[in-house]
Amino acid sequence: MNLKEKFRHVLNFPKEGIDFIDITTVLQDKDAFKYAIDSLVNLVKDLDFELIVGPESRGFIFGAPVAYVLNKGLVLVRKKGKLPYKTVSVEYELEYGKDVLEMHIDAIKPGQKVVIIDDLLATGGTTLSNIKLVEKLGGEVVGIAYLVELTYLGGRENLKGYDVRSVVQFESSLI
Amino acid sequence: MNLKEKFRHVLNFPKEGIDFIDITTVLQDKDAFKYAIDSLVNLVKDLDFELIVGPESRGFIFGAPVAYVLNKGLVLVRKKGKLPYKTVSVEYELEYGKDVLEMHIDAIKPGQKVVIIDDLLATGGTTLSNIKLVEKLGGEVVGIAYLVELTYLGGRENLKGYDVRSVVQFESSLI
Repeated sequence: MNLKEKFRHVLNFPKEGIDFIDITTVLQDKDAFKYAIDSLVNLVKDLDFELIVGPESRGFIFGAPVAYVLNKGLVLVRKKGKLPYKTVSVEYELEYGKDVLEMHIDAIKPGQKVVIIDDLLATGGTTLSNIKLVEKLGGEVVGIAYLVELTYLGGRENLKGYDVRSVVQFESSLI
Repeated sequence: MNLKEKFRHVLNFPKEGIDFIDITTVLQDKDAFKYAIDSLVNLVKDLDFELIVGPESRGFIFGAPVAYVLNKGLVLVRKKGKLPYKTVSVEYELEYGKDVLEMHIDAIKPGQKVVIIDDLLATGGTTLSNIKLVEKLGGEVVGIAYLVELTYLGGRENLKGYDVRSVVQFESSLI
């Protein structure tokens, strides 16, 4: 299957100049969705790990099925105030101002190996926050996998030292 | 497995008097997570449908694996402004004020049968909004499945006329 052509490009969303990769056209197509999950499973199944970290909220869509198929636990990263129990947190730089991401303090035990799964690698900012949360709890990030990588934004450079993998790559923006 | 005892109760979250059912302890336990997904799959696999509707954001965690296992498409319900393409929307009553939920206009074709999957049935308010979105697009809700049902909140009464199913039931609050 040519998965790449199943994504919809929404131009100028959420703002002028952005070529937004819409994953919903992949999700709605049962065969494309199955292919996407199987591809992510194949991308990480050689790694030795116990937990998948899925960042809110599109990371849940891909992290959960991969965790199910590979029989791993799933750890949530959520925005401030959403997780009910005690948390660790990191500040997250936005274009204007800051946001906070959280993880439950008992989500990862010291020494546990984890793989982070998210829908898309842009600049890697969110993933760096996810890594910080994992490492605050003493976990080890042994891999990071994305369904889509926007190679022209150079996110991989910001994640140097980590094992970064992706199913589909877009080399240029349509804008 | 006694799945029910794998949930953590966080009392007085997000506010005084609430016995909040924390699903993260189920997600983090690989065997409990697998059991939860398998139970949801068994709960809906007899139904004739094409698509699973997963509401943001905990619905993604359960809707996505079930869609994968049963080889169905996955449709997202998201909060206002998150979906990039053209949407239909419904207003959603909160305790104070209103919120808006959206679905892409091409997410469901007229006549398509769908199952809504979410983590928890409380009063059923969010699910009623999800049903409205499906029906606005001409889809038919043939089933609604939850991992957890708080039977003491009577949500099932608010969803009369729909086929409502749940894996685990809590009959009373700890508070």
